[in-house]
Amino acid sequence: MMKVLVINPNTSQEMTRQVEGALRAVKEPDTSLLVVNPDDGPRGLSSARDDLFAGGEVVRLIKRYDSESYDGVLIAAYCDPGLTASKEVCSVPVVGIAETCSHVACLLGAKFSVLTSTDSRVPSKEVYVRTMGLGERLASVRALGVTAVEASLDPRRTKAAIMEVGRSAVEGDGAEVLILGCAGMAGYAEEVEQALGVPVLDPTAVALKVLEGLIRLHIRQSKVRLYAYPTSASGNGAAG
Amino acid sequence: MMKVLVINPNTSQEMTRQVEGALRAVKEPDTSLLVVNPDDGPRGLSSARDDLFAGGEVVRLIKRYDSESYDGVLIAAYCDPGLTASKEVCSVPVVGIAETCSHVACLLGAKFSVLTSTDSRVPSKEVYVRTMGLGERLASVRALGVTAVEASLDPRRTKAAIMEVGRSAVEGDGAEVLILGCAGMAGYAEEVEQALGVPVLDPTAVALKVLEGLIRLHIRQSKVRLYAYPTSASGNGAAG
Amino acid sequence: MMKVLVINPNTSQEMTRQVEGALRAVKEPDTSLLVVNPDDGPRGLSSARDDLFAGGEVVRLIKRYDSESYDGVLIAAYCDPGLTASKEVCSVPVVGIAETCSHVACLLGAKFSVLTSTDSRVPSKEVYVRTMGLGERLASVRALGVTAVEASLDPRRTKAAIMEVGRSAVEGDGAEVLILGCAGMAGYAEEVEQALGVPVLDPTAVALKVLEGLIRLHIRQSKVRLYAYPTSASGNGAAG
Amino acid sequence: MMKVLVINPNTSQEMTRQVEGALRAVKEPDTSLLVVNPDDGPRGLSSARDDLFAGGEVVRLIKRYDSESYDGVLIAAYCDPGLTASKEVCSVPVVGIAETCSHVACLLGAKFSVLTSTDSRVPSKEVYVRTMGLGERLASVRALGVTAVEASLDPRRTKAAIMEVGRSAVEGDGAEVLILGCAGMAGYAEEVEQALGVPVLDPTAVALKVLEGLIRLHIRQSKVRLYAYPTSASGNGAAG
Amino acid sequence: MMKVLVINPNTSQEMTRQVEGALRAVKEPDTSLLVVNPDDGPRGLSSARDDLFAGGEVVRLIKRYDSESYDGVLIAAYCDPGLTASKEVCSVPVVGIAETCSHVACLLGAKFSVLTSTDSRVPSKEVYVRTMGLGERLASVRALGVTAVEASLDPRRTKAAIMEVGRSAVEGDGAEVLILGCAGMAGYAEEVEQALGVPVLDPTAVALKVLEGLIRLHIRQSKVRLYAYPTSASGNGAAG
Amino acid sequence: MMKVLVINPNTSQEMTRQVEGALRAVKEPDTSLLVVNPDDGPRGLSSARDDLFAGGEVVRLIKRYDSESYDGVLIAAYCDPGLTASKEVCSVPVVGIAETCSHVACLLGAKFSVLTSTDSRVPSKEVYVRTMGLGERLASVRALGVTAVEASLDPRRTKAAIMEVGRSAVEGDGAEVLILGCAGMAGYAEEVEQALGVPVLDPTAVALKVLEGLIRLHIRQSKVRLYAYPTSASGNGAAG
Repeated sequence: MMKVLVINPNTSQEMTRQVEGALRAVKEPDTSLLVVNPDDGPRGLSSARDDLFAGGEVVRLIKRYDSESYDGVLIAAYCDPGLTASKEVCSVPVVGIAETCSHVACLLGAKFSVLTSTDSRVPSKEVYVRTMGLGERLASVRALGVTAVEASLDPRRTKAAIMEVGRSAVEGDGAEVLILGCAGMAGYAEEVEQALGVPVLDPTAVALKVLEGLIRLHIRQSKVRLYAYPTSASGNGAAG
Repeated sequence: MMKVLVINPNTSQEMTRQVEGALRAVKEPDTSLLVVNPDDGPRGLSSARDDLFAGGEVVRLIKRYDSESYDGVLIAAYCDPGLTASKEVCSVPVVGIAETCSHVACLLGAKFSVLTSTDSRVPSKEVYVRTMGLGERLASVRALGVTAVEASLDPRRTKAAIMEVGRSAVEGDGAEVLILGCAGMAGYAEEVEQALGVPVLDPTAVALKVLEGLIRLHIRQSKVRLYAYPTSASGNGAAG
Repeated sequence: MMKVLVINPNTSQEMTRQVEGALRAVKEPDTSLLVVNPDDGPRGLSSARDDLFAGGEVVRLIKRYDSESYDGVLIAAYCDPGLTASKEVCSVPVVGIAETCSHVACLLGAKFSVLTSTDSRVPSKEVYVRTMGLGERLASVRALGVTAVEASLDPRRTKAAIMEVGRSAVEGDGAEVLILGCAGMAGYAEEVEQALGVPVLDPTAVALKVLEGLIRLHIRQSKVRLYAYPTSASGNGAAG
Repeated sequence: MMKVLVINPNTSQEMTRQVEGALRAVKEPDTSLLVVNPDDGPRGLSSARDDLFAGGEVVRLIKRYDSESYDGVLIAAYCDPGLTASKEVCSVPVVGIAETCSHVACLLGAKFSVLTSTDSRVPSKEVYVRTMGLGERLASVRALGVTAVEASLDPRRTKAAIMEVGRSAVEGDGAEVLILGCAGMAGYAEEVEQALGVPVLDPTAVALKVLEGLIRLHIRQSKVRLYAYPTSASGNGAAG
Repeated sequence: MMKVLVINPNTSQEMTRQVEGALRAVKEPDTSLLVVNPDDGPRGLSSARDDLFAGGEVVRLIKRYDSESYDGVLIAAYCDPGLTASKEVCSVPVVGIAETCSHVACLLGAKFSVLTSTDSRVPSKEVYVRTMGLGERLASVRALGVTAVEASLDPRRTKAAIMEVGRSAVEGDGAEVLILGCAGMAGYAEEVEQALGVPVLDPTAVALKVLEGLIRLHIRQSKVRLYAYPTSASGNGAAG
Repeated sequence: MMKVLVINPNTSQEMTRQVEGALRAVKEPDTSLLVVNPDDGPRGLSSARDDLFAGGEVVRLIKRYDSESYDGVLIAAYCDPGLTASKEVCSVPVVGIAETCSHVACLLGAKFSVLTSTDSRVPSKEVYVRTMGLGERLASVRALGVTAVEASLDPRRTKAAIMEVGRSAVEGDGAEVLILGCAGMAGYAEEVEQALGVPVLDPTAVALKVLEGLIRLHIRQSKVRLYAYPTSASGNGAAG
């Protein structure tokens, strides 16, 4: 039995249910999922400020749900809010969907592109890929010009945008793999893949399979240096 | 008249007073400083979790003190907590001391080293320099093996550690410039500089002078793409 | 049911049985493994020449065993012989243990080190990590000073060497994760992990779990550009 | 009182007066400027040969004006002629406008673009940014297709070119900050900034403010390794 | 007298004769050439699989022709098949035309572009340049959209394609030097050079001149670490 | 007949004679050498200031000796003074010994080290290799702790220093190739090579052979962009 705590870092319960549905469809039979979201914080993540506050909520949820009683934790937003702090406070493995999926994409083609919602989200995703050290593998980050909210309201426009922008990434930027880097895009992977002829990754699903693999092998993040447990001396009331 | 809001991101009022004293000594005559700290959050920043919660407090303070009524904002902790989000929400220039001082160090020598408190803080500082794109200019990040708290309690040991570790950075790693990357180290710059013969930078002071320069020239962070204003649609109660 | 073809690229049947045993212990219940090795080619891989000829054998085995009748292929030697060509000729997902494990290691710590057999194998492994674009995440490649053959004959010396060299990687090079990059090292991961306090990865096991995840999600390498099917026009008798 | 020696490295007295005017408008009240140019050497800098000879003139002027009797030196051409040698021979801080402004631009946005005069000047500016280690932060170097001389003769065409090329940098290359990397462009910063909505930097002004900050804090370039004083043994008649 | 063994790694005798003719035209008077090709293996190299099998054939030919009785070896295909293994098994200098020509191109301009046959060959050539560590010097790899076979059958179309694609590399990608990275392109260098005004390199000729220079100076590849002789223990029947 | 103009950029006639002797020993039979040095400028190059003034002298000599009446130009000092400007003003090929030899070293091993005179010369050589884009191929730059003058006066000490420092580069830094990056070291290559077992390159000889190869093939630096001819409009009296 693998118990996995899945955290949707925004307050949208609808999104939480979507994530849960998507993961139930691909989980191993003996994986037990609890999918939660914070009560407070941003309804959606569309800025660095949102990411920051959502990150705080993720760490609070990890404490509240006692992550140590789970076998692994999955943070389900494509900016990996609070990921470093979460790996730090947990002894069980924690995965972020952007980090995990970026590395898996590198196994599938020379270069990958990330599709995101709007232009203002492009640079932070480029910077994040560089921070992972994967800058040379990134073909591009391209924006649909559709906010996450609009994406959920207008599936037809969303699909058309994914097709068009995905094609530009493949034909213009040399992408051999596409990552759907925005919650509202989930569910279109298969269709886009058939149309464009390249793997189209749903990062939440990919992250769950990698996490299950880590759990099976009893692999956890290193507790030496970057993810060492916080020292108690810092007296952080917020997390304590 | 330049009005600068200085944020010490931890709750230590003693630290706030130290920062204020150090900045008053170097500010321009017509600079007016308000130095504040949050009521809640970590007492000191010794982990990614601390940095994350402190970052949230920084953004809350920016709102609470109405940053737009200032000419600039300075975040005074050497992990730049909340810096990206703060640049995003402000129209006035915001500087972080690590980012600013790293770039200034590059004007003074081929490579710089950062001195930090303990081993577990080393990788995140290395990653941050890489995120800035300055990886090729970094000689090393070296830890004193002294926590920030210990540093403030035992100045003699702290100074000896700075001397020894700084010397290793210069002679062993090829550093031509040293940055004192920890609050507890402030005040030793001059002595270390004389002993080791390389510039030793107090990043808080350096950041203030750069900020004053930006204010004089009416230069602000770009509001296009990375630091674009958050869209209101995200409904972030925490910051609203 | 997931059918996986595992290729030990050298001619050692003993090694093939070891790999099979190790993988049977960690595979999913519904994974069916066929572990094979070539009849011809190098007995062990200790040079670029060996890697080259072993790569040719891998591609021949893929043809001989009709990879399309499997759900995935795993190449089990830490130089990934023939990996690019294998991904090219297969429609089913193919993973190499070095490539896969290097990317997984990046999820677990800031930097990883690879332990290999002898000094002459160090540079090609450094170059390979750079080719993946992961150069910034590599702490070091360190040699045990023990050939693969010696490793299998003298387990005591091998374990002592892994401990000593692994400790140097962690304490001297800043490695937060270790990869046992040589077949003869398999089986020591747990003990080394307990002694050194960092994750110690057996790359063959890690690669199998990632491959199973890809199979579950019906993800395959991109057939656009880098791994496009070879054109028949080249008239390659060897593979035809 | 801060005494600053400003060197226009070409022989154009008109340019010298322009630089002086621009700097007087932004200097601190207690800054005293001497703005000089060489008697010999190129009239304008439009090639590596020009940069080389202008660099020699800069070092000669530093000697002739006895830089040690100043608090700092500013080299006012966007190829930083003679900068390394000038930092080497001076004990007081020396800044080049390209180097300084490139680093400041990194504080204001994810990526910056440099506008230059003609195509043949593009590669050397790209190489220089890479030499600083800032290659990842560069969106592009774009040429106006207008020589410096033409720029001064035809302000209307120059402004139109800056607008058009600047817009391409912002919209096509992802630039969030623009640097006016050519003397003839000075004076258009404000208008371009309003039209394009990104910070547009006049590098001479930026460099002066950073230099004033360094002087206030008694910070000088390191005299260890890269900028160590030349040894007298080399018997350089030209500079002696 | 310099005896050079030239290996055309495919089985096309026509290509072998072309290579021989091209090299005879540029060799030093006292250079004696033996140009050979394998009996088995791919007729042309249009995939990673082809490159792999051709690499094996190259190493076999080196043994068969007793490379030690030559003064140097040249591998004449623009994917350098078997190059690392060949340098390893030989004591005499071995050069690959892609590696050698890429480095020479860097002496002639800021950035170079490589012209190749079809789109599917682009990524491996990009990756190879990155493996050499020359990624920053690469303007682009561009495909003619013409296979090697088509190129030899339709010279007119080939020349037109080289002109058009070469012009795009120069004007669109900033290439200052072009490399004709495909056997079928040989012979057009001069015409293209005159039309586009940039050096257009025939890599086989360039590699021969560099090899002759190494031979004159008695310079060989290092036998320490990367190219150390294979240990006999590996029992590689194929090469032994 | 190949006419080569060799420029020793310092005023030491003794050095000029040494360079001439070394090159006569390795030149092709039909190569005609003129080896010259400036009348003015530094006697030796031991600082960036020296390099700058020597660079100016190199460009003046190119004009004085009418480079166009030669088939190629070689600049014989391991800081390549005036190289970019020289390539710019000449239509015939110009090579610098540091640039050329660094690229050739990459053909011979995974990483190379450069031996230089004193510590203060190390960073500029590191920066130069990075500027070439070869940073990943550099094992180290190491100083002998012997000035060029001392090297010529005390050959015994020099040889001992080369041996000791070279060994550290090979065994400590992973260098597989050594470059003797200082005029005073010429003549020890063979002995050091035998002692350390790695190729030891005399960069002046290497550069001549590459230049002869370029001349044979009628290859010149690109006159597009970086090395475009200077426009006459700059009115550079010094070079005109």
